[in-house]
Amino acid sequence: MAPEVVVNEDLLRERKKCNFNIKELTYIIDGGRERTEDRRNIESIAFKKEHLEVVNKGPPEECLSLKERYEKAIEKSCLFAVLFKNFVAAGDVDVETIGSSFLRRTADAYLNEQSPFAVHLGMFVTTILGQGTPDQQAEWLPSALDMQIVGTYAQTELGHGTFIRGLETTATYDPETEQFVLHTPTLSAHKWWPGGLGKTANHAVVIAQLYTKGECHGTQPFIVQIRDRQTHMPLPGIRVGEIGPRMGYINADNGFLGFDHVRIPRENMLMKNAQVLKDGTYVKKSHKKMTYGTMVFIRVILVSDAAFNLAKAVTIAVRYSAVRRQCQPNPDAPEPQILDYITQQHKLFIGIATAHALQLTSAWLWTTFAAVQADMREGNVDNLPELHALSSCLKALSTSDSLVLIEQCRFACGGHGYMLSSRLPTLYGYVAGIRTNEGDYTILMLQCARFLVKAFEQTEAGNSVSPTVSYLSHTASMGGCWDLTLEGIVSSFQRLAKGKISAAVTSIRRRVESGMSYEDAWQLSTIQLVAAAEAHCRAVICSAYWSETQRLTASSSANVRAVMQQLASLYITYWALERTGDLLRYCSISENDIVSLQQRYEELLALIRPNAVGLVDAFDITDEILQSTLGAYDGRVYERLMAEAEKTPLNSEPVNKSFHTHFKRFMQGKL
Amino acid sequence: MAPEVVVNEDLLRERKKCNFNIKELTYIIDGGRERTEDRRNIESIAFKKEHLEVVNKGPPEECLSLKERYEKAIEKSCLFAVLFKNFVAAGDVDVETIGSSFLRRTADAYLNEQSPFAVHLGMFVTTILGQGTPDQQAEWLPSALDMQIVGTYAQTELGHGTFIRGLETTATYDPETEQFVLHTPTLSAHKWWPGGLGKTANHAVVIAQLYTKGECHGTQPFIVQIRDRQTHMPLPGIRVGEIGPRMGYINADNGFLGFDHVRIPRENMLMKNAQVLKDGTYVKKSHKKMTYGTMVFIRVILVSDAAFNLAKAVTIAVRYSAVRRQCQPNPDAPEPQILDYITQQHKLFIGIATAHALQLTSAWLWTTFAAVQADMREGNVDNLPELHALSSCLKALSTSDSLVLIEQCRFACGGHGYMLSSRLPTLYGYVAGIRTNEGDYTILMLQCARFLVKAFEQTEAGNSVSPTVSYLSHTASMGGCWDLTLEGIVSSFQRLAKGKISAAVTSIRRRVESGMSYEDAWQLSTIQLVAAAEAHCRAVICSAYWSETQRLTASSSANVRAVMQQLASLYITYWALERTGDLLRYCSISENDIVSLQQRYEELLALIRPNAVGLVDAFDITDEILQSTLGAYDGRVYERLMAEAEKTPLNSEPVNKSFHTHFKRFMQGKL
Repeated sequence: MAPEVVVNEDLLRERKKCNFNIKELTYIIDGGRERTEDRRNIESIAFKKEHLEVVNKGPPEECLSLKERYEKAIEKSCLFAVLFKNFVAAGDVDVETIGSSFLRRTADAYLNEQSPFAVHLGMFVTTILGQGTPDQQAEWLPSALDMQIVGTYAQTELGHGTFIRGLETTATYDPETEQFVLHTPTLSAHKWWPGGLGKTANHAVVIAQLYTKGECHGTQPFIVQIRDRQTHMPLPGIRVGEIGPRMGYINADNGFLGFDHVRIPRENMLMKNAQVLKDGTYVKKSHKKMTYGTMVFIRVILVSDAAFNLAKAVTIAVRYSAVRRQCQPNPDAPEPQILDYITQQHKLFIGIATAHALQLTSAWLWTTFAAVQADMREGNVDNLPELHALSSCLKALSTSDSLVLIEQCRFACGGHGYMLSSRLPTLYGYVAGIRTNEGDYTILMLQCARFLVKAFEQTEAGNSVSPTVSYLSHTASMGGCWDLTLEGIVSSFQRLAKGKISAAVTSIRRRVESGMSYEDAWQLSTIQLVAAAEAHCRAVICSAYWSETQRLTASSSANVRAVMQQLASLYITYWALERTGDLLRYCSISENDIVSLQQRYEELLALIRPNAVGLVDAFDITDEILQSTLGAYDGRVYERLMAEAEKTPLNSEPVNKSFHTHFKRFMQGKL
Repeated sequence: MAPEVVVNEDLLRERKKCNFNIKELTYIIDGGRERTEDRRNIESIAFKKEHLEVVNKGPPEECLSLKERYEKAIEKSCLFAVLFKNFVAAGDVDVETIGSSFLRRTADAYLNEQSPFAVHLGMFVTTILGQGTPDQQAEWLPSALDMQIVGTYAQTELGHGTFIRGLETTATYDPETEQFVLHTPTLSAHKWWPGGLGKTANHAVVIAQLYTKGECHGTQPFIVQIRDRQTHMPLPGIRVGEIGPRMGYINADNGFLGFDHVRIPRENMLMKNAQVLKDGTYVKKSHKKMTYGTMVFIRVILVSDAAFNLAKAVTIAVRYSAVRRQCQPNPDAPEPQILDYITQQHKLFIGIATAHALQLTSAWLWTTFAAVQADMREGNVDNLPELHALSSCLKALSTSDSLVLIEQCRFACGGHGYMLSSRLPTLYGYVAGIRTNEGDYTILMLQCARFLVKAFEQTEAGNSVSPTVSYLSHTASMGGCWDLTLEGIVSSFQRLAKGKISAAVTSIRRRVESGMSYEDAWQLSTIQLVAAAEAHCRAVICSAYWSETQRLTASSSANVRAVMQQLASLYITYWALERTGDLLRYCSISENDIVSLQQRYEELLALIRPNAVGLVDAFDITDEILQSTLGAYDGRVYERLMAEAEKTPLNSEPVNKSFHTHFKRFMQGKL
């Protein structure tokens, strides 16, 4: 008989205190009751006892060698993929299904972070969908979706990352055999980083410089088989392996890949956007921008990934802070829950609010993305630049903010946050990965800045601009005065962003006027340009978060509306206080206003405090997904820490063999 | 024949460009030419070929299971400890030798981060030195220093960290047998975290609540044998094991420990500061503050540890940035070295400057510590509160700044910084550990704030205060105007700190006047108190860094003086720009001043750029210590990354067994 689960008393009391309907908030966060039910249905299948027994057998994964971890990851990925195929078999397969956060959060429970199959679905399949012709899709998609073949997406090289034009891998067309010859001319040209490539994938989409009739036509995608389907041996001319240990993505099987004149059929170039005819003639078919699709899609996904991983971290840290007691400011009272310390609230509540902000912004971005996708199917790419700029800065800021706040959650858990069993270091390692991959922070901010500078010039010329930068024309007429309402602060953030964009433009122009080339002037202004893009992105998030909160709580219960608005107020007030220097410079904020902001901020902490545990419960992240000794629903922190320690293989024997091989002789002075 | 080492051409060119004498700067950083020579001597012995063969045999450590890693750590620790004993045998053994950063940096080369023996020397031995009577020292020190016994320091418990009064482990004196009975009354009372405890140590200093004659006298240190010296089996009544995987400190063998009525002789209580007589009478011998010694010592050490680990990170990132080329802003030129991008300089040069700032501040703090130690030997504890406050806030801010900047170095290395072979994630994990252990950031800042508030009240009463807070009396007479000289900015930081301390005091008093208890008012003001302590600490570092730079370069060559002053200027200007909001509020800085600061900052980046590689070379961190594929002296980044990847056990066979056990059947739809 299983012992009854006893929930920690402090947590029980916290849950009694909560004054809003947790389920109602969960539905809002998920995007509606039906979606919550869908998600729970997926979870109930994935977390069946017999599945979890496979997932959890053996010692904690972090104790194993990397080779053993890979083997375990394959076993678990196969199990999950079988379930996944059943899930998707029930519905239409489109990018939305593949990108579904519900499936991804379930995969987390199986694999901690990334599966060797993740790139197959997220990028191999989606690239065929986005860049293959209908014939090519008919050729490759069925076996790919059924996972009879498993692919990866090989773009980044050892010596070349973000700058795609710098890639060195070549695909040279040979009209005699109607084949492309793939080749890796140098060490630095080896593909490096693709997930699933090291030991798993038997196919890859390879991005290479296309040469035909002696001319280079830039990078194109090619499907290349890299391993034999029967023996799994690398095919002739293929050099492939794992790139070695990483900070995170430990199970992701990231690999390297080199080609020694490997030949593939002409039909293996994905030809939706450009073609090579049998005789070697190159034909460009569509706008270069059409190929942005996959990239933008992945960035949109990463915003919601950042939100979800932050939600996990703050769930762990808030529950732990309700259970942990420390110090004794009042000698007659017991040690207080650390959640009662205002410094702890200062660390954690901004995490809850940011998880909301990013989740609502990501849902809003997803809607924008879907609309632009629909436009593009009609051949209209007008809104793509705005979406590209938005997805760039939001990916950068959301992953960066989440990373900082996940680490802050870890700090807030003291020494126990340093244990891998807390799960906080793993969340950090994963989000550190998504902060860098698919576009580094600085580079993405500068991509957004290009868009902002263009928009700024448009408004100077009196032209209209896209909605998310329309403040560049409005703010001039808004007057300069600081307004302590939330709408007022959001406007101030926009004025501030405009001020920074304007300062960067001035700095570029001053340099151009002194005789510098535009590009050099741009380069020397990049510190300011990054700051401008950050300010813009913060204004976008504040604005979207506040308006989505208003919209979503219009018909909600009063108490849910209250807590959601408190969180949004906290977020906006927090960032106003973080940016007092800018607000003093660009808006007419006064010393008294700053003092009022600080007081309001502290009042909001006090208002949120009684609902804090309820708020993280509303993320509805099951223990199977959370996998945290500190953050489990029952709050039995110390019992779980000790139980986890006891599973460490080092503890399976009282004396380690190194005592006999080295340590004893050393202590006896015999070494 | 070994192939000739070819240094990367970009690095060669950078080194030619360097305009100052690198050796001269190394001597200054080390504290004098003799110290550099001592250090190199230690390194030349430690890094003999036959030693490194033992250290480096087998696959990369990060690929092994935790059990294998522990076994390797013991083998390497024994080898290093034999060398260590020879080193110390040559000189007097005192805390300074044990704390020597030269020995610790060499240990890094052997163990990546922490050895299972580290706490033995750093805390077990030093506690006996600091808290044992002469008789007890005679009894325990010889075998401890000769490492015939290996100990740890067991204070923190599963449920209790910083708040020592809350510890639950008891030591109850039994006058009949003249023994103490050690006991662990609850799960949360288990000792948790001590390094070396899990599988290695056979002794421990245990901090427990002393009970005698039915009365509790607070915590005292006891020496307890925990394992049999012949068999290494845990002794009866001892429950001991490893606590499980951690974010860093992977080889540190952190453990848990519980006692079931374990008896030890009366003589095993360390009795320098308090005694229990045979009949059980408790006698207090000296000021409670005397026991702060070990704690302050460790904090002082951690400041230099933070500086050194940051120096490693920035060495890696600057060398890599000189080798890595990316993007092509000018279509007629090759891809530039990423070190030429001003955004990259913005990320990295503050890292070089901060490593200098913390190194010089730590040397200055060490001098202060030695003086206070000498005072204490005379029974004078007058300067201890200042030292305690200083060591608290400097430990907090130095580890926190280093952590952020190490991560910034990692970001600056893009995807390759995510590889463990870059070493940046390991440095992050280690410094993340020292940021939390020996006192969490917030708690240490609040300890410093207590001191600041007292000092503020003293100056209000017209009394004089300790040197590092004397600005609290001076700044009033300094006038309010902003002064763009570096001395002027340092004064502004002091004025700013005073403003924040004053605001926090006002906030406490307002609450007390409204009827709140002082302690409650303090608690509600802690966000402001932490901010005040941060501002104070930043002013201390800026002031110490600038004055030490002046002092140390008074007799140096002009070019070394120039680069050191450029770095100090960069540091101070950087922090002024980070704190414009505060400077606008508390000092009379103008918009034009801010623009000037930004321009000066960018000029300094340009001045430092040609010497950047020389500056990191001057840290003189050998490849054996650095252990980085990205940061080696020869800059052969891609060769090293590929060579390291090839050592991964996953690559020792073309097809992993999981293909046959699961993956093939899965692709065939048979799972």
